[in-house]
Amino acid sequence: MTVRVGVIGAGMIGQDHIRRLTDVVTGATVTAVTDIDQARAAEVAAHVGAAAPPTGDDLIGSPDVDAVLVTSWGPTHAGHVLTAVAAGKPVFCEKPLATTAEDCLRVVEAERARGRRLVQVGFMRRFDTGYRQMKEVLASGALGNPLIVHCAHRNPTVPDTYTSRMAAQDTAVHEIDVLRWLLDDEIVSAQVIAPRATRKRFEHLQDPQLMYFETANGVRIDLEVFVNCQYGYDIQCETVGEEGLVRLPDPATVAVRGAGRHGTAVPQDWKARFVDAFDTEFREWIASVEAGAEPTGPSAWDGYAATVITDAAVRSLESDGTVVTVDMKPRPALYGGTA
Amino acid sequence: MTVRVGVIGAGMIGQDHIRRLTDVVTGATVTAVTDIDQARAAEVAAHVGAAAPPTGDDLIGSPDVDAVLVTSWGPTHAGHVLTAVAAGKPVFCEKPLATTAEDCLRVVEAERARGRRLVQVGFMRRFDTGYRQMKEVLASGALGNPLIVHCAHRNPTVPDTYTSRMAAQDTAVHEIDVLRWLLDDEIVSAQVIAPRATRKRFEHLQDPQLMYFETANGVRIDLEVFVNCQYGYDIQCETVGEEGLVRLPDPATVAVRGAGRHGTAVPQDWKARFVDAFDTEFREWIASVEAGAEPTGPSAWDGYAATVITDAAVRSLESDGTVVTVDMKPRPALYGGTA
Amino acid sequence: MTVRVGVIGAGMIGQDHIRRLTDVVTGATVTAVTDIDQARAAEVAAHVGAAAPPTGDDLIGSPDVDAVLVTSWGPTHAGHVLTAVAAGKPVFCEKPLATTAEDCLRVVEAERARGRRLVQVGFMRRFDTGYRQMKEVLASGALGNPLIVHCAHRNPTVPDTYTSRMAAQDTAVHEIDVLRWLLDDEIVSAQVIAPRATRKRFEHLQDPQLMYFETANGVRIDLEVFVNCQYGYDIQCETVGEEGLVRLPDPATVAVRGAGRHGTAVPQDWKARFVDAFDTEFREWIASVEAGAEPTGPSAWDGYAATVITDAAVRSLESDGTVVTVDMKPRPALYGGTA
Amino acid sequence: MTVRVGVIGAGMIGQDHIRRLTDVVTGATVTAVTDIDQARAAEVAAHVGAAAPPTGDDLIGSPDVDAVLVTSWGPTHAGHVLTAVAAGKPVFCEKPLATTAEDCLRVVEAERARGRRLVQVGFMRRFDTGYRQMKEVLASGALGNPLIVHCAHRNPTVPDTYTSRMAAQDTAVHEIDVLRWLLDDEIVSAQVIAPRATRKRFEHLQDPQLMYFETANGVRIDLEVFVNCQYGYDIQCETVGEEGLVRLPDPATVAVRGAGRHGTAVPQDWKARFVDAFDTEFREWIASVEAGAEPTGPSAWDGYAATVITDAAVRSLESDGTVVTVDMKPRPALYGGTA
Repeated sequence: MTVRVGVIGAGMIGQDHIRRLTDVVTGATVTAVTDIDQARAAEVAAHVGAAAPPTGDDLIGSPDVDAVLVTSWGPTHAGHVLTAVAAGKPVFCEKPLATTAEDCLRVVEAERARGRRLVQVGFMRRFDTGYRQMKEVLASGALGNPLIVHCAHRNPTVPDTYTSRMAAQDTAVHEIDVLRWLLDDEIVSAQVIAPRATRKRFEHLQDPQLMYFETANGVRIDLEVFVNCQYGYDIQCETVGEEGLVRLPDPATVAVRGAGRHGTAVPQDWKARFVDAFDTEFREWIASVEAGAEPTGPSAWDGYAATVITDAAVRSLESDGTVVTVDMKPRPALYGGTA
Repeated sequence: MTVRVGVIGAGMIGQDHIRRLTDVVTGATVTAVTDIDQARAAEVAAHVGAAAPPTGDDLIGSPDVDAVLVTSWGPTHAGHVLTAVAAGKPVFCEKPLATTAEDCLRVVEAERARGRRLVQVGFMRRFDTGYRQMKEVLASGALGNPLIVHCAHRNPTVPDTYTSRMAAQDTAVHEIDVLRWLLDDEIVSAQVIAPRATRKRFEHLQDPQLMYFETANGVRIDLEVFVNCQYGYDIQCETVGEEGLVRLPDPATVAVRGAGRHGTAVPQDWKARFVDAFDTEFREWIASVEAGAEPTGPSAWDGYAATVITDAAVRSLESDGTVVTVDMKPRPALYGGTA
Repeated sequence: MTVRVGVIGAGMIGQDHIRRLTDVVTGATVTAVTDIDQARAAEVAAHVGAAAPPTGDDLIGSPDVDAVLVTSWGPTHAGHVLTAVAAGKPVFCEKPLATTAEDCLRVVEAERARGRRLVQVGFMRRFDTGYRQMKEVLASGALGNPLIVHCAHRNPTVPDTYTSRMAAQDTAVHEIDVLRWLLDDEIVSAQVIAPRATRKRFEHLQDPQLMYFETANGVRIDLEVFVNCQYGYDIQCETVGEEGLVRLPDPATVAVRGAGRHGTAVPQDWKARFVDAFDTEFREWIASVEAGAEPTGPSAWDGYAATVITDAAVRSLESDGTVVTVDMKPRPALYGGTA
Repeated sequence: MTVRVGVIGAGMIGQDHIRRLTDVVTGATVTAVTDIDQARAAEVAAHVGAAAPPTGDDLIGSPDVDAVLVTSWGPTHAGHVLTAVAAGKPVFCEKPLATTAEDCLRVVEAERARGRRLVQVGFMRRFDTGYRQMKEVLASGALGNPLIVHCAHRNPTVPDTYTSRMAAQDTAVHEIDVLRWLLDDEIVSAQVIAPRATRKRFEHLQDPQLMYFETANGVRIDLEVFVNCQYGYDIQCETVGEEGLVRLPDPATVAVRGAGRHGTAVPQDWKARFVDAFDTEFREWIASVEAGAEPTGPSAWDGYAATVITDAAVRSLESDGTVVTVDMKPRPALYGGTA
């Protein structure tokens, strides 16, 4: 059976995922594309022989759509996801699940009402080989309890539309999701510190930022977010346990000796760095849809948690680095909790 | 358009490629499977909804087969490939193209007669990201002329059916192909030296072996082939040029510090080491078939060259390490030569 | 000219430095040794043909002593150093310079009164090749302004006499000194956070600890102190600047591939890790004494600063992680300041 | 007791060792310096307060000289060493021990006649920490029998006085010595192959060269000698055993990320690369002299073996890469042999 996917949002990310579903992942076909810009939707749809229904609701309701991919503008995410859940269709929603914690909770409540998880949120790090190896090492118990995690998330540059709070909302959110999963633990407080700022940024932006998180088990996480580091796209993660530590590898790349240096290239682009993770993310999502199973990736609850935690981080940033307690609802049984 | 592939040979490799064409590579479907063991062919074919014609000739002739994949027993390769060429169908042949240089030449002659390349031979290293980066560095001219290449090809163990000449024919043949391509140069002599043998091998086997090759441009290649190295599957390659060198990376994998050691895992399995290369190899082959273009991977000529060079290596091994000149025909224009 | 050194304190460290001055560093000879345990002093002295005067004052006053090395019990340091300064003799004092900031200031004042620096404090990291290379890179300006420093200081285990405040006083104090020097900047606040504790420690001890420091220029430092990490003695330091970063190397050691792993040994012992730094420290100190010059290593002021900063860290630890402002006097002109 | 050393040869190397014996190594003093250029000898001697006897014989005979260091022009080495042996004085001779195998044998015979080893030859690699760690790993048996050694010896450039045979005599000779020691095995044949030459060399010079050696135990060694590699001074050595391999580390040095690259510096200078090995070499030699013991470093026999093996390599180079058998006398009992 081929999974027929309808895509809401035909911008850059939407187009990239359409290409992925068409050319990279087997077992899927894109049958419908919609966008607020109907001409763009029509053009993208034509390229893959899909329909271009006028609205997201039409797309979700279409009998030619088995599963929905939401890659539209962030504020529209929750609405489309709720409609898909109401229609009982599996839905993959690019991050964020919603722009407010309240809207995230509405999705969670809608799933609880149906008694079944239909939503997967687009945090791709959980599908990266390095993070998966790290999780295996931690789960093996070889290092004992995890105690501390050191992370860095660096981009070469960002455009001037990037604001200080996006460091939490758009950048750190990936670490927030992957660390909750990696540690199988919950983040309970957040703090954001402003070090000396780089001069290589737009004036309005605090860059770099240091983010400190504490988990329910007392694990401490420090995360450097530095989005104008100039030299490359660089993701570092090291988890320190009671008997040793495990560190994420740099991407494998040829080493060159020349002109007095031994060196390797640092990737410049997040898409290149995580291309395999994106492919695996969609391969596994399509497989779960095809099997009629609940998705195995980040859930609506994970989307909610990420939003609540980034909110706390933003509040800390905007109150001079106060430690902000994360105010999270009890986790429902549907998501492995007790509520 | 979906490329309909017929597969001749339903053994372990054949089944792995059927899985690849079905689950991993988009744009392809397996429509026919045949095997000397008809029951096995039927079972494998049923699994993917393919037909199971009684013979390779039937399969090649089938109107439901656009392209042919030969993964049968080595001595049958040339026959099937010649039939496919005669039928004007693209054919991917797992190595070796043929078990004798004469038979390889018959394929070359058949293609010349048609005036078009239809054959791709299954050397997957050319599709590995590391080797491709190395070729880019060399092609950029940053290192000047290549002068020397140091290689190692190590397997943890081999079964007792593995013979001393297979070190050249089955193992070193991968380096032989990828180095001809990497250097854009031809190998003109081969020599095989027997160092002190490991005690961890079957008695009949000379292991390790050192192979030395010279190219037309005078580049010297040393290749350690060690198929009972115990510790893992380990592929090393370093090209030394006039201004520096470039070295193949080890696969990226998490580093662990524990019990007084800092370390990473060495892969144990060639399939894991080159899984991405295999996927890319088939993705690009299917794309070339779909486009109606000549294949971009190793040609029948490359298959011939590999066979002639491994023959020379075997002759050297069996004559106490004499340097053996490679006796290669002039390269036809169809393959970029002048003959 | 051979520098005649008198050593006050013949314990483990004292004996190690006597060996160093005798067997490793040229241009020095140990002519007097004293200790609160006079029998031990006599034995150690006899071993190198030195005298064993009854008290530190006698030793400092001896015409056979050109320079003084203080390696006695911490609380006695300041007294001996003050006596040496009063005698106008160069004095090398193992850390700490004094156990209270007040006593450190007394030494500073004594030097100011003489108008000349005579004291060097035993922080050896400034003499480590890796830190020196890092300082060179930072000083070159190639990375722009430093913004953030990530550090880790890990010991395999500590004895049960080690207390939670020693994490700052005895362990982090090395990073505190070397980072002030590396950044050419002053630390203005300290904070100590208690992550989930390892179970592999004595019950009374908070281990690991996370220490955060801010400098006058706004640089943020995070330092993991983990003194029961089990796996080895591991010193990490990475400075992030506006255009790139620089990282301390691990010690060079052979890599081994075996049993499925590629790995290197992690040192187990701080003495082995910094043996070259200790040798260089004493070589340069003896050279400065021989030249009649002021010492080039850490000054009394640096000793004072380290004590004030570790005091702030201890106060933070003991007040649940409050940020504690470092209350430092203005730096006198004798030490490059303006007071 | 301070060892009083007389130095024959006050050129660059001689001066460097005089500095080492004076400023770096304890327990030694240079009491006499001689040179064919008497003015230079006088100047260098005055600098360290040594005498400047007119000839090597005078120096060796002087009652103020306990041990002799020969750093004069190669062809004069054997004569001075023989005189020292005749005088019963320990003598350290920079490589080569003699310029002909016959002269080396004369030294060996002289020692045999005295029934005691007095000579140490200046091969410093045996004192390098990395090689020593490698020897420990091999000696531990963890890797089983050694089977193959891969080496590279690269210099950035050489002056035009460097000739093709110096690649064996002056460059590869270091690997020849250290590998005999590392493997505790004897080299029985040598072969030198000329790959494509770099264009970045003086026209008369074959560069790079590939040298292949076989040992009595059947171990095969390949050594790339490339003395105009442009990018740095780079020493590589990897020993492959039955159960794994061990590889020499690169020198520890800070890693920098900047401008899209992660990299470390490659040393440019052999003196910097092996400075610690030189210091240890002399420290241990002085200790053996002080103890009245036979030297623990390379012996006269090792000097002879190195000469015989480099002679074989030169013969191979000059006969188009023929394999040349090493024609070595039986090893006398004085050097651990049975003759």
